[in-house]
Amino acid sequence: MYEFSDEAGYLDYLRREVPLPEGFRAASTALSFVPAERPTLEPYRMDISALITERPTDSFAAVFTQNAIVGAPVIIGRRRLGEPATRGVLVNNRISNVCAPGGESDAEHLAAAFAAQIGAGQTELFPVSTGIIGWKLPVSDMERELPTLAGRLSPDQGLEFAAGIMTTDSFVKVRRASVGEGSVVGIAKGAGMIEPNMATMLAFLVTDLDVSPELCRDVLPEAVETSFNSISIDSDQSTSDMALLLASRRRRRPEEKEFAVAVRTVCELLAEDIVRNGEGTGHVIRVEVDGCRNNAEAKRIGKAVINSPLVKTAVYGNDPNVGRIVGAIGDCAGAHGIPLDPAALRVEIGAVPVFERGVFALDREKEIHLSSYLKRAAMNPRLRGFPQHMRCVDLHISCGVGRGFARVSGSDLSDEYVHENADYRS
Amino acid sequence: MYEFSDEAGYLDYLRREVPLPEGFRAASTALSFVPAERPTLEPYRMDISALITERPTDSFAAVFTQNAIVGAPVIIGRRRLGEPATRGVLVNNRISNVCAPGGESDAEHLAAAFAAQIGAGQTELFPVSTGIIGWKLPVSDMERELPTLAGRLSPDQGLEFAAGIMTTDSFVKVRRASVGEGSVVGIAKGAGMIEPNMATMLAFLVTDLDVSPELCRDVLPEAVETSFNSISIDSDQSTSDMALLLASRRRRRPEEKEFAVAVRTVCELLAEDIVRNGEGTGHVIRVEVDGCRNNAEAKRIGKAVINSPLVKTAVYGNDPNVGRIVGAIGDCAGAHGIPLDPAALRVEIGAVPVFERGVFALDREKEIHLSSYLKRAAMNPRLRGFPQHMRCVDLHISCGVGRGFARVSGSDLSDEYVHENADYRS
Repeated sequence: MYEFSDEAGYLDYLRREVPLPEGFRAASTALSFVPAERPTLEPYRMDISALITERPTDSFAAVFTQNAIVGAPVIIGRRRLGEPATRGVLVNNRISNVCAPGGESDAEHLAAAFAAQIGAGQTELFPVSTGIIGWKLPVSDMERELPTLAGRLSPDQGLEFAAGIMTTDSFVKVRRASVGEGSVVGIAKGAGMIEPNMATMLAFLVTDLDVSPELCRDVLPEAVETSFNSISIDSDQSTSDMALLLASRRRRRPEEKEFAVAVRTVCELLAEDIVRNGEGTGHVIRVEVDGCRNNAEAKRIGKAVINSPLVKTAVYGNDPNVGRIVGAIGDCAGAHGIPLDPAALRVEIGAVPVFERGVFALDREKEIHLSSYLKRAAMNPRLRGFPQHMRCVDLHISCGVGRGFARVSGSDLSDEYVHENADYRS
Repeated sequence: MYEFSDEAGYLDYLRREVPLPEGFRAASTALSFVPAERPTLEPYRMDISALITERPTDSFAAVFTQNAIVGAPVIIGRRRLGEPATRGVLVNNRISNVCAPGGESDAEHLAAAFAAQIGAGQTELFPVSTGIIGWKLPVSDMERELPTLAGRLSPDQGLEFAAGIMTTDSFVKVRRASVGEGSVVGIAKGAGMIEPNMATMLAFLVTDLDVSPELCRDVLPEAVETSFNSISIDSDQSTSDMALLLASRRRRRPEEKEFAVAVRTVCELLAEDIVRNGEGTGHVIRVEVDGCRNNAEAKRIGKAVINSPLVKTAVYGNDPNVGRIVGAIGDCAGAHGIPLDPAALRVEIGAVPVFERGVFALDREKEIHLSSYLKRAAMNPRLRGFPQHMRCVDLHISCGVGRGFARVSGSDLSDEYVHENADYRS
């Protein structure tokens, strides 16, 4: 738990507390280009960034989007999982290389060119792209920049890498967990609330621990499920989402369970950072649902609430609008055949009961109290370069039917969200 | 197809073209009250409105929300379907009487009191409420106003009724279809885009035709399915949504099929009015999906697109962002196991192909063309009191797999939407 009053303080903290684990190097560089699809006068900026192991490693894992339409980097990344070793990732922002003509060969070409710069094998890098979809990468502009990028690779450029992969993100997302004699460090981007995903979620986890390829491939999908797959809504997979885990194997093998917890913790912290940095997020909302027949139904109800635009806009307006919460719960239950007894339903906002025994438990005093609770959890949308605090709006829903449980997080819905998404390309 | 340049012209048109059918009377009146839940200095305004048959009729039908938590009027309305006859509806706005202590007996009390005023039986009126949920109706304030309401009942007060049932609506919604020797007239309220529903959709259809109770009860649910249930999103049932059909049986029995088409047409026109009047709607978006394995999968894809906040915000910004459309399609297909071959997928915006054979078919010229297409379909959000035009943004998606088809409509997502929903109760 931390609070910061400015961006410099936040970055100082990260640089001090979250260095890259042993055996990794990172770098980032920028270039200007004129997209073929929009030959306007002002060129676009693109960052190219790399995060690599010093030596090839066989211990790596990746989880990719379930979207039926995927970008060239995902197609290539799935192939890379069949390779015996990797050196890491080459990432660009601005253009996501999805369904663009020749996208796959463009990505392979750039990855091979950078591999040559760093003495890696042709298929030892994962190419990763995020940004506008449908446009072609400016391959030759990017290729010219690769020697500069290779020259900058250094163990202390993790924050530069974290900044270089951002698109609509307003602060870098780096988290760390210690485990045994080493650590797990995660770097993520993504700020596309309402649909977290749609603005592409990328997460790169690196560890210096001597963990096996099998362990990496067991642990990563589980961690993704309770973290990145539990923020916001149903439809939460962009065409390019991915999470990668790379181990340099420099430090003594940890307990498997401790390693799994560390990876999950880093993923959950990064997922919360992504929600908090959502485009126009004013409040982070955390919904816990218990008492359902099973976890899946609990998750469905939680997502219905966190995904209700009317609940989100009410929270944005610091309005403890229980009616909208109960409406969203009932709508979800009615639409999906989830048994719900209004008399057994209980809803709390910030631990204050607001609905029980079939009726609203509201009075003027509670409304005033809850409205100031919501105001305290609000973030100043003008302070965008760092996370100001870690407070959430907690909603607790007890269905009183069974033992199913789920926790999901998401953001409110603000004017700023709409602005950012309507203006993204202009 | 019509265009209007001011509210007066719109209302003149309605008054001329859409009188109530024979055998119906309507009225509306307003009152001030101080809600028990918010005893502030400034009282609230509430409208009470009635739409009744001159004589009891056995020919009536109703469709209610599928929400698992329903308001007192829905509980009572379901009971009313078992009564031998009805005289119509008594509607209030401002407070929806959902999950408020004693809500059911309050509604029964008011309905019986108004029934006494007009010489109807105790259980011959459907009480209907829309507005804030969780609060109690100001029963005695309302009861005092009932004689005034009864005194105003007249065949030419249909527009006053249509205006009296509005909440966040900015224009009245009245539509008419001729059939045989009579007509079907529909009056609706609802303006709660994104989730059309959540702001409660009420639709009252009245006809002077001599149609049987059985025919009414067959025709109404089918009409609701392709109209009100095909706008916007998955979770589209508030705690109070309802559609009622009442026949005064004054004019000769029509062809059954013609009557069904008339009811469906009126419902579809009203549904489009509701989308167009959505809170902060800048564009109406219509999505047609064909080539799916079945209609259900087509509807699912259509709803995923119409419900994607990123698609909606792009349309709001007049940005023909094909990437977001394709991302939403692929996300839906991947998440629900719907087969999708990117090479067979074809997407058109306003009849212009923008994605085919697995790649984006975009160039600068097309983007400029489509951006002005989007601008032409935009509505001026400051002209709120009447529908300015009937233009839509048409998206056509062909999946190339089977013969499944669906059409859904919805709105874009604007700053104004967020404002209205964040400020609703303040």
